[in-house]
Amino acid sequence: MNETIKCQTQHRTIRKFKPDAMTKAQLDAILSAASATPTYTFLQAASIIHVKDAKKKKQISDICKQPYVAEAPDLFIIIADFNRDARIAAAKGADLSALESADRFLSTFYDATLMAMNMVTAAESLGLGTVFLGSINNDMEGIIRLLELPKYTFPCLGIGMGVPDQHPTLKPRLPHRFIYMEDTYRPMDDPLAELADYDAIVHEYYDLRNANQRVDTFTNQMAKAMEHIVPGRMKILETLQKQGFLKR
Amino acid sequence: MNETIKCQTQHRTIRKFKPDAMTKAQLDAILSAASATPTYTFLQAASIIHVKDAKKKKQISDICKQPYVAEAPDLFIIIADFNRDARIAAAKGADLSALESADRFLSTFYDATLMAMNMVTAAESLGLGTVFLGSINNDMEGIIRLLELPKYTFPCLGIGMGVPDQHPTLKPRLPHRFIYMEDTYRPMDDPLAELADYDAIVHEYYDLRNANQRVDTFTNQMAKAMEHIVPGRMKILETLQKQGFLKR
Repeated sequence: MNETIKCQTQHRTIRKFKPDAMTKAQLDAILSAASATPTYTFLQAASIIHVKDAKKKKQISDICKQPYVAEAPDLFIIIADFNRDARIAAAKGADLSALESADRFLSTFYDATLMAMNMVTAAESLGLGTVFLGSINNDMEGIIRLLELPKYTFPCLGIGMGVPDQHPTLKPRLPHRFIYMEDTYRPMDDPLAELADYDAIVHEYYDLRNANQRVDTFTNQMAKAMEHIVPGRMKILETLQKQGFLKR
Repeated sequence: MNETIKCQTQHRTIRKFKPDAMTKAQLDAILSAASATPTYTFLQAASIIHVKDAKKKKQISDICKQPYVAEAPDLFIIIADFNRDARIAAAKGADLSALESADRFLSTFYDATLMAMNMVTAAESLGLGTVFLGSINNDMEGIIRLLELPKYTFPCLGIGMGVPDQHPTLKPRLPHRFIYMEDTYRPMDDPLAELADYDAIVHEYYDLRNANQRVDTFTNQMAKAMEHIVPGRMKILETLQKQGFLKR
């Protein structure tokens, strides 16, 4: 196993960091990896906002309902950004109405999400710990106001980074046979029976991780997750449409 | 610069491959990286279909309108997959209606796209070349039929992989100052003037790459890209909704 794959397979989410921010050299390296990310037909439709203002970090932390967001030494919000390309096109007199299509929404979403993954891999290869913050979606409009995001953009993912101050064990993932298929999708016939062994592994992981934390199985978690939606997230489609996306 | 970031910053799209498929050890390493990808609240809502059937590869190649898709020794379609979690939840008697929300659409999209990036990074670290195939979206319904994708899934991205049989130069990306911001989104005031230097760099890149290919600037490309949509892609929203997503 080479260094890169070793780094990828050792990924764990870090939620407790030492106080120091990353160095300029580390930031530059992470930006170089971000910038080289594959991009959909060269659109380069993603940007990075480095949130340094302590008040803004606290506000984002409140939206995420996770105190460690404000405590992460470096906080980034990755922006799905068609504003830049739209301004270029408008300056050339182009019609922008295609931006309302689901196709264009997907293309900027790809660019921003792929870039976010590349940043995390780069940061982890430098010994930094990371946490993805999908919880910015608890109030997408709040993030848009806070970062002054214009039309044809939306906040795709947050990432907290810093030197780890905890060493969590690796969380056991679904065995390859469940996620890998050949030629045709293979639905599960009897999911609870097929996943019984994995349920036991996940249960043991939670049990060993922390005596004071929940002890659950994977299938129980999924049943709860399918039913649970944070109320603020029911406005996401409306917010995306306000930003100019997903109208048709 | 460490091995991982070196690999990331040396990324280039490969469209011509030597004929040999990857080894079992390479596939296992790529699946291990895929499996370790960060996942949204542990949903693990992504799967991988390895398309080996030559007839299916040809059909996907026709949808993509790119002959090199059929020629890629290994072809993967990364599936945004909530079917597994939905079946688990249904077996536990849970209500599945939240899956119709944009929030759940985003979460499976994140999982599949992050996983796709991790697979590409792993493959490139092993010396393989890769090409992302967003062009599967030319006919999303066609891909769904071909791979027999059930409700609560959709084909997120294709990836072709193989030993490179070409050595393209690195394509110049937007300088960091355009994609990196602090605390607040910074719109471009005068995009054509601000991007004049970068336009010249991209023009030179195309000029040197191939005397028979288009010679264009970045801003001209973006103006065309904002107006151009493949007709089949105007059905994507409808298709996603048929699959159970994005209804509210």
